[in-house]
Amino acid sequence: MTSSDKQFRPLAVPAVTVGGFWGKWQDAVCDETASILLDRCIAAGMLQAIDVTQPSPGVVIPFHSMSPTMPETEEKARVSTQMFWDSDFAKSIETIAYALYRKPNAELEKRADDIIDLYEKLQQEDGYVNSWFQRIRPGRRWTNLRDHHELYCAGHMIEAAVAYFQATGKRKFLDIMCRYVDYMLTVFGHGEDQLPGYCGHPEIELALVKLARVTGNQKYLDLSKFFVDERGTEPHFFDEEARRDGREPKAYVFGNYEYSQSHLPVREQKKVVGHAVRAMYLYSGMADLATEYQDDSLTSALETLWDDLTTKQMYITGGIGPSASNEGFTDYYDLPNDTAYAETCASVALVFWASRMLGRGPNRRFADIMEQALYNGALTGLSMDGKTFFYDNPLESTGKHHRWKWHHCPCCPPNIARLVASVGSYMYAGSDKEIAVHLYGESSASFELAGGAKVQLSQKTAYPYDGAIALSLGLAAPARFTLSLRIPEWAAGAKLAVNGEPLDLSSVEIDGYARIEREWKDGDAVLLELPLELRPLYANPKVRQDAGRVSLMRGPLVYCAEEVDNGADLSAVRVVDTPAIAGTAVLNDLNGALAVDIEVQRNKIEDWGTTLYRSAPPKAEPAKVRLVPYHLWDNRAPGAMLVWFQAQ
Amino acid sequence: MTSSDKQFRPLAVPAVTVGGFWGKWQDAVCDETASILLDRCIAAGMLQAIDVTQPSPGVVIPFHSMSPTMPETEEKARVSTQMFWDSDFAKSIETIAYALYRKPNAELEKRADDIIDLYEKLQQEDGYVNSWFQRIRPGRRWTNLRDHHELYCAGHMIEAAVAYFQATGKRKFLDIMCRYVDYMLTVFGHGEDQLPGYCGHPEIELALVKLARVTGNQKYLDLSKFFVDERGTEPHFFDEEARRDGREPKAYVFGNYEYSQSHLPVREQKKVVGHAVRAMYLYSGMADLATEYQDDSLTSALETLWDDLTTKQMYITGGIGPSASNEGFTDYYDLPNDTAYAETCASVALVFWASRMLGRGPNRRFADIMEQALYNGALTGLSMDGKTFFYDNPLESTGKHHRWKWHHCPCCPPNIARLVASVGSYMYAGSDKEIAVHLYGESSASFELAGGAKVQLSQKTAYPYDGAIALSLGLAAPARFTLSLRIPEWAAGAKLAVNGEPLDLSSVEIDGYARIEREWKDGDAVLLELPLELRPLYANPKVRQDAGRVSLMRGPLVYCAEEVDNGADLSAVRVVDTPAIAGTAVLNDLNGALAVDIEVQRNKIEDWGTTLYRSAPPKAEPAKVRLVPYHLWDNRAPGAMLVWFQAQ
Repeated sequence: MTSSDKQFRPLAVPAVTVGGFWGKWQDAVCDETASILLDRCIAAGMLQAIDVTQPSPGVVIPFHSMSPTMPETEEKARVSTQMFWDSDFAKSIETIAYALYRKPNAELEKRADDIIDLYEKLQQEDGYVNSWFQRIRPGRRWTNLRDHHELYCAGHMIEAAVAYFQATGKRKFLDIMCRYVDYMLTVFGHGEDQLPGYCGHPEIELALVKLARVTGNQKYLDLSKFFVDERGTEPHFFDEEARRDGREPKAYVFGNYEYSQSHLPVREQKKVVGHAVRAMYLYSGMADLATEYQDDSLTSALETLWDDLTTKQMYITGGIGPSASNEGFTDYYDLPNDTAYAETCASVALVFWASRMLGRGPNRRFADIMEQALYNGALTGLSMDGKTFFYDNPLESTGKHHRWKWHHCPCCPPNIARLVASVGSYMYAGSDKEIAVHLYGESSASFELAGGAKVQLSQKTAYPYDGAIALSLGLAAPARFTLSLRIPEWAAGAKLAVNGEPLDLSSVEIDGYARIEREWKDGDAVLLELPLELRPLYANPKVRQDAGRVSLMRGPLVYCAEEVDNGADLSAVRVVDTPAIAGTAVLNDLNGALAVDIEVQRNKIEDWGTTLYRSAPPKAEPAKVRLVPYHLWDNRAPGAMLVWFQAQ
Repeated sequence: MTSSDKQFRPLAVPAVTVGGFWGKWQDAVCDETASILLDRCIAAGMLQAIDVTQPSPGVVIPFHSMSPTMPETEEKARVSTQMFWDSDFAKSIETIAYALYRKPNAELEKRADDIIDLYEKLQQEDGYVNSWFQRIRPGRRWTNLRDHHELYCAGHMIEAAVAYFQATGKRKFLDIMCRYVDYMLTVFGHGEDQLPGYCGHPEIELALVKLARVTGNQKYLDLSKFFVDERGTEPHFFDEEARRDGREPKAYVFGNYEYSQSHLPVREQKKVVGHAVRAMYLYSGMADLATEYQDDSLTSALETLWDDLTTKQMYITGGIGPSASNEGFTDYYDLPNDTAYAETCASVALVFWASRMLGRGPNRRFADIMEQALYNGALTGLSMDGKTFFYDNPLESTGKHHRWKWHHCPCCPPNIARLVASVGSYMYAGSDKEIAVHLYGESSASFELAGGAKVQLSQKTAYPYDGAIALSLGLAAPARFTLSLRIPEWAAGAKLAVNGEPLDLSSVEIDGYARIEREWKDGDAVLLELPLELRPLYANPKVRQDAGRVSLMRGPLVYCAEEVDNGADLSAVRVVDTPAIAGTAVLNDLNGALAVDIEVQRNKIEDWGTTLYRSAPPKAEPAKVRLVPYHLWDNRAPGAMLVWFQAQ
């Protein structure tokens, strides 16, 4: 595994420290979420599943589903043990790893160590380790890759092991997973008695890239490439596997293999289809491989898919996958707001994909969307206090949609938690001779360039609420490299100065990044000013659900109106193009968010009495509406919420 | 059972002959639907279920589900035998009865007779007759009135028996059902060994009123009153029944008894809740009893429920019950258009209820809604050719919603068919000294007033497309009575003349009816002119789904735009208040419907390219849109459809 000036790899999490906006979120994860994840995994029965000294929990166990409206002790249901529990434990440990780096916590570390010990005991002689197949459904190993999340679980455990090693230096979990993957290398392949297969739920592909990068071991990268290259080829592995297992391939509940993006070889896929998280994880792995192998055929396929997603199938929040029935995609331009599924995991995974599309160089085509999905579709999944979680993320609510304490399919809580806890690694990337700043926010990052030059890069800023970003560099000795700063597409009129000297942006901007190549020295200061104005956004008229509607963004943040500030019946609000600002306010009870009050028209309701339909149109009157960042909705008094307002 | 001037009973179906608009629809039912209903009932296995000479079909049988997109022979699934099949056979026979009156058809009559013969053979010694309990689940009689549709099936069979007797004069089916009800009279009551119960799915209540009216037998009326009075009282029958049957009452899948409107005694119910068809059938029976017993406490409860439904929970189409999950009601003002359930049966049943609210006298508060639901929510359920059926009735479609050939729950096809085939009986009603015309349309009806005076009343009109209605009277001798003609609320400026003499409407209008009391003589002519202008309708701002939207009606008809006339992306159409009419056209390929072309603005789509969101609002350009009656949508080339347009 070589490095080059064409390969931008993310910084390891410990290489970045964040403060400001993201610091508060990371503190919530460190102080609350990290331990809550373990508590609730255990309440759900997961510990018993991995602990070989206890009896198997069986296929059905008592289970606490903690809905938004029920106290933790009250609601219980007997549900199936979940085949993907290992992944949820793994994502929880990954979160803990990142949390430990920020805030050492001996008790939390002990709890993680104990779980890793249980996995060590669970691991079989040959290296195999999966609690569901060993403890709940023994004898079914490798019989149904299509449905049973076997390699998916391994993928998340690999990611957790890498993170735990990076955060703590402890190798035990990493060694467990290396042994497991070494065994997989004997199972998968084109040899006789080998399986030319891959997982119905992509995830291991990107995980193996992480494992290869941390171990420097090419064989893990090659296994990832094998899984990606086999996917969707004929004869179809899932057909053959089903027949071997005595199942009728055509009886597949999802009808065809679009659900798992295995309907075609990956390089022939043009349309983003199926289960949203599966799609994003697959494309993330593909993008990593495109970077590592400098594979233009993969990059080309990914760019087609990227445009397909972001120009026809994405909510303004960066939410994706409108439908609950397949947890995924439907038709082009079908973006219902009140019933939006837009799973938290899917936006988290879109951040993953976008960040990996930057592996071949800075380009705001990807980074702008990464920021949009991060601040809106993804972050909304976590409450301000780090204790509750959205699974689906509508853009309109009548007041009944609230965060869960836990969910029978608890994938989202640890997913948003690990993203928040590792957000620094998405802010920056480096190649041999370039440092790219993809996201802005109070932080400090350490880089090592080709030749060993070390650079410390810091941002002082109140972004995303204020657009002034002061970057400063720390170097032991001057060094020549390119510092690339993203200029978001929405930031027309952005200003840039190096050591007080204004820089003509147009002369240095490539692919939406200001690329400043020079000999940098210790103490150099760069000031970037991004204009943050409230701006209206209209949807393509093909989006029927947004017809006659307007949404409002400020910088990367989608804003919404909540009942707690504005009363109910928010659909009566009519927003004129570029509404007048009546004022702003810093809300201390809402993480210090900047609220924006705008002048609107609002349809009168009183004069309707009990009339349901009438020939006279509603009468409007002037009113003010307070807007708050969408990601913070449902953190105060519960009530209605709206993103897309009537436009007039 | 007495008659009075306070009791308006519907005319028997044979007393009215319709032509014009409804004549075409009735011809389609006579020529196609009536036999199709039997064909598909039989294809679904129902004949085997009632035929005691054949083996029981068992709990699961091969079944043809004929979806909109599949040829009849292709799609098959194994499904449970349906506990409510008797009701679907019964509604089919009821349809045939009405069809036979319009068009004698020996073959169809023979098929109905043969089925009635099978029911005769099925009937047990004690009078009990129900195919599911006798053939599929023997031994379960009267054990689960809450869920198992036992009395519901009996109700539909009673309605069918009454209709078949009225249409053919044959008593066999009527006698079967009288024997069955006579047996029920021993089963239900407050005596020891009797059940103080009622059906989870109301229906028998209104059926028993029909049976009482046709037989003159008060005991059937009293049984209906018993069922209504017992409903929702404590201790709750469904709780006690469940315990007797070894079921946990609290484990009820719908949570509480709102689903079946048995959560409270009926006179204490204020809010329309639960399963929409159940609600409408219950209220229909209650309204019949209010008329028969002159029961003001029932009328008062019904008026509260009426306002609740029609001012907070009804689509502009007269569709009701927005949610598929409970086939019923949700929150006030929750009226989603694209996912509207708005079951055909529910609008049919709203017509039933409305017509029965007229039992205590003409009042357009009820009759206007009856007409609205009839022409829009209900009639849409039947294709123009009488061969296919809508189950749910959205007000917006992207082009994927089409009528079914048959449905696994085939309640709607015979329900809309029997309504269409008997529509004449909803047009008129009479008391001892008043004739009320509730609905307009080419037709002729026979009345007998107190004292035996016979009146023939005819309408010549092209209503609902033309507002001129010429009524003429035929009498053997002059007679004094009141002729009451509905003046719809939307018909401001209506004109009325008797024998050429204009009548001042305001001087004769009571409760929205022109009440002309005089001595009428043979050949008297009344001319009513209802202005039919396209009129915009706006929804109460609390209906978030219609915010910023306008719909268009002309007379009783909701109009819509279809893709076949207007291209796709109908949500780009912007309708100004009272749009200019560009022209009208009579569409021969659409039952001679009047299409209306209007001037609109339409958002340009081309200039968006691949942009999904942008800060510049869409640009509009002038365009024309062709509107057609909503009830006729999806009868030509399949495609998108829209009722609520962007308003501007």
